[in-house]
Amino acid sequence: MRTKQVEKIRVFSLGGVGEIGKNMYVVEIDDDIFVIDAGVMFPEDEMLGIDKVIPDITYLVERQERIKAIFLTHGHEEHIGAIAYVLKKITAPVYGTKLTLGLAEEKLREHGVTSSAPFVEIRSDSEVVFEKAKVTFFRTIHSIPDSVGISIHTSQGAIVYTSDFKFDQTPYGMNRVDLGKMARIGEQGVLCLLSDSTNAEKPGYTGSDTLVAQEIADVVYNAEGRVIVACYASNITRIQQVLHAAKASGRKVAIVGKSMHKVMDIAVRLGYLYLPDKLTISIHDIERYEDRELLILTTGGHGEPMGALARMAKQAHKQINIKEGDTVIVAASVMPGYELLFSKTIDALYRAGANVVYGQRKVHVSGHGCQEELKLMLNLMKPKYFIPVHGEYRMQKAHANLAKAVGISEERTFLIDKGDVIEFRNGQARSGGKVPYGNILIDGLGIGDVGNIVLRDRRLLSQDGILIVVVTLSKEAKKIIAGPEIISRGFVYVRESETLLDEATKMVTNIVNQCMQDYIIEWSSLKLNIREALNQFLFEKTKRKPMILPIIMEI
Amino acid sequence: MRTKQVEKIRVFSLGGVGEIGKNMYVVEIDDDIFVIDAGVMFPEDEMLGIDKVIPDITYLVERQERIKAIFLTHGHEEHIGAIAYVLKKITAPVYGTKLTLGLAEEKLREHGVTSSAPFVEIRSDSEVVFEKAKVTFFRTIHSIPDSVGISIHTSQGAIVYTSDFKFDQTPYGMNRVDLGKMARIGEQGVLCLLSDSTNAEKPGYTGSDTLVAQEIADVVYNAEGRVIVACYASNITRIQQVLHAAKASGRKVAIVGKSMHKVMDIAVRLGYLYLPDKLTISIHDIERYEDRELLILTTGGHGEPMGALARMAKQAHKQINIKEGDTVIVAASVMPGYELLFSKTIDALYRAGANVVYGQRKVHVSGHGCQEELKLMLNLMKPKYFIPVHGEYRMQKAHANLAKAVGISEERTFLIDKGDVIEFRNGQARSGGKVPYGNILIDGLGIGDVGNIVLRDRRLLSQDGILIVVVTLSKEAKKIIAGPEIISRGFVYVRESETLLDEATKMVTNIVNQCMQDYIIEWSSLKLNIREALNQFLFEKTKRKPMILPIIMEI
Repeated sequence: MRTKQVEKIRVFSLGGVGEIGKNMYVVEIDDDIFVIDAGVMFPEDEMLGIDKVIPDITYLVERQERIKAIFLTHGHEEHIGAIAYVLKKITAPVYGTKLTLGLAEEKLREHGVTSSAPFVEIRSDSEVVFEKAKVTFFRTIHSIPDSVGISIHTSQGAIVYTSDFKFDQTPYGMNRVDLGKMARIGEQGVLCLLSDSTNAEKPGYTGSDTLVAQEIADVVYNAEGRVIVACYASNITRIQQVLHAAKASGRKVAIVGKSMHKVMDIAVRLGYLYLPDKLTISIHDIERYEDRELLILTTGGHGEPMGALARMAKQAHKQINIKEGDTVIVAASVMPGYELLFSKTIDALYRAGANVVYGQRKVHVSGHGCQEELKLMLNLMKPKYFIPVHGEYRMQKAHANLAKAVGISEERTFLIDKGDVIEFRNGQARSGGKVPYGNILIDGLGIGDVGNIVLRDRRLLSQDGILIVVVTLSKEAKKIIAGPEIISRGFVYVRESETLLDEATKMVTNIVNQCMQDYIIEWSSLKLNIREALNQFLFEKTKRKPMILPIIMEI
Repeated sequence: MRTKQVEKIRVFSLGGVGEIGKNMYVVEIDDDIFVIDAGVMFPEDEMLGIDKVIPDITYLVERQERIKAIFLTHGHEEHIGAIAYVLKKITAPVYGTKLTLGLAEEKLREHGVTSSAPFVEIRSDSEVVFEKAKVTFFRTIHSIPDSVGISIHTSQGAIVYTSDFKFDQTPYGMNRVDLGKMARIGEQGVLCLLSDSTNAEKPGYTGSDTLVAQEIADVVYNAEGRVIVACYASNITRIQQVLHAAKASGRKVAIVGKSMHKVMDIAVRLGYLYLPDKLTISIHDIERYEDRELLILTTGGHGEPMGALARMAKQAHKQINIKEGDTVIVAASVMPGYELLFSKTIDALYRAGANVVYGQRKVHVSGHGCQEELKLMLNLMKPKYFIPVHGEYRMQKAHANLAKAVGISEERTFLIDKGDVIEFRNGQARSGGKVPYGNILIDGLGIGDVGNIVLRDRRLLSQDGILIVVVTLSKEAKKIIAGPEIISRGFVYVRESETLLDEATKMVTNIVNQCMQDYIIEWSSLKLNIREALNQFLFEKTKRKPMILPIIMEI
């Protein structure tokens, strides 16, 4: 290696392990910090009211001056969705392929963030040379073009991050895999491999996108009425297949959904999506065409397809609704935690009279490789150490088992959690402690101002509602001036529970009077008394535990 | 037929179509009403804070005197779970097999309901003769013994309800299917078949329980540490397999979970579960045994297995926690809407060091038949008309497609929703209007006192929390006596949002003063003003919409 001798390499994840989403990996080479990816995650069920989640980057912010580069591997939300938030706090050069940078720039525009960080376009054959490392890339196949894996070459060997990949031997469109280059990297010596665990529990191979293209073309060609296709806005491969299918069957394409428009505009402008002339029409012009001349391509608010479809099925979409005779193609798999929305939506589509094409026919395949592909990657890279990333813990675990099967012993595989540091010295790995990490919740304009207490309150409120007790007191006169008034929301039907609430009101009156007689004039103890008495009373009567909020006004 | 000539038959569902759960079907023969099953449903995601859901039986309550019988087909919650609620309002004889009635009686005990309704035990060869119908039964194979289908023979032909079934050619234990009897019913003439749609989307056959028994025995035998098996309390077939596996491998069985104890006690007492001598031990005695001598059989609160496992994995269970070296067998499939809990629990088990056996090995199969089995039932029964029941709409639809494939035309298949009546006269079916139906939500002790408004409030509260504005006024003096005070819960961190809340407080003060100057003394319009102003202000500042609750106290 021509690169300088390196004493210590530290590798850890600030997001993307123990979860699907918000990928962010950090490689520290002596004092130099390299950040790979900056993704968002969609909130889990229990994160009530939260719009999205990003990694806590306090560790990076405090070490700004040491950050040499941010690498983005491809243009999906879980890899670039947090870039605007990151560049608000950090200024470092951002490296990515043309399409990836195009989509990342759009993120900055959306968030109104201006950054002085240079955006450096790379190709898969680029080499970026730093003082202590040379960084190269290799093309991978994923559901978006211009995806790359990254290899950070150091004097101890290479740290390789595959990012999202599959091995499709008959890929669709411009995607081509750099098998030779991967093998070469493996031959040169990989110190540590970080590889995609998404489908590590699934045996065999992920199906080919070329077959999906044929299947979609077949369904579109044979549909008698309108065709509505729903997919993720960022699945450019799928979108291209749909455009070709429409063209081949003589249908015009109307696009619904802001995020779909945005992504397509960028992909067409940069040459990653071929949009045949006069193929698209405005959604407002669909009335001018026969049903069998139409294909509607749609996605939802976050580029997630089911929300919009659900509205269309319930005749509640602003622009287009499902009618008898429509064929709906759901060219997407269900996001974890969204299974119920998915099945409810399929149901609603059927009820609206549509012919729904989803799981039964292969109109979608995953962008991530299954077990045989993961083993192939491991065999190509032949890493000395292995860190399964990009997945829930059980997927990382399943990936570790695959590694064991191809000969990477358990001692050389690290099942890391966020913040866990693996440290390399003289080519030997060991645990290197922990760095701070966390979730930053985004709710509306607030970044991180919703934390555990607020979420706990939302959770409590969502279960049995709230009961508010207001009373105005005169401390001097030692008497109640107004109230107590009891108001509830989300607890019981007030009309049917008058007796219950009357009794509760009397109870509070007694407590307040008693307290004032006893000279308990600490509002906090008065509130505590009210809360405890009501808690017990209401639980006995209803077996429910609303949040109880006593408010004491003093004049 | 020796039964009396019948003019009109009406068939409808009060629960169980368009959903999985709360099965209740009604067959009206002229003036006589026959009710089949009385199930509960577990709440869906959006039913915040709700414990369970039962069918609205207003229609039945208003026609009490016409109800001749309530038939229970088997002892699962979705078929008998609402029986206590039903018998509180209706008195009619309840027919069921021994185990089914045993479990139904336990439901009454649990709810402290005493009913004068007679419980009439039937066997699969029983005949119950009513004025205008003769009712017979046929044994089916399901995951609980003593399951039957029901055939109501009338002068127009038979109305047959299969209830839950599969055709296992090598069933486990005492389950045997009445193939001959089903064929005979078909030969005699089925006017209308109501059949189980649960797995109508799944091709092929459901696997055999005998293979599952072997697989479980194999896993238990080869486990080196403790074995923890989680399954539904009501899956008596599975429990029997586990007991045999424990016996065969020389392990003692400790049972965890009230509902598991209850169901097992009843099943053993009535002779449906064979519990070898000295096999079970108390959970408190497990310390006396080596890990490899132990098998722990568990289920959760509602007989649902994942909740308890999740607590065990997080070391938060009262009686037993997962440790390194445990083998956990999840012998259950995931309930719709519980996918995230399922995958999070598997994850937590792995993290706790357990070897987890679930989807990869066949330690569980469905109790419901797949497409080939559903077609076999259709071919045995050869119904003139067909109503797919027990399933979401898309499953009913898939079942209708299967019926079409075996020769039952679309015109003879009815995709009904709850309350839709199919009416038969002279052996001809037609739509017969609609009867009232609905969901009754159960929250704590409240039955039906949580409705749409309360749920809507819980939903609102769960999204952005609540902001309460209290102000005490003197109408006479036209001035504010105390407040305004603003309190929020689940909205923002108060400490970080002082400025925001201060501004809001000032705003309210101005509005109140303004209103009093303008002689607006209608509290409702004052409240409206406050709500609108705050709504707009907070949305601009935070892009959130908390519930805003102005409270005006007057002295």
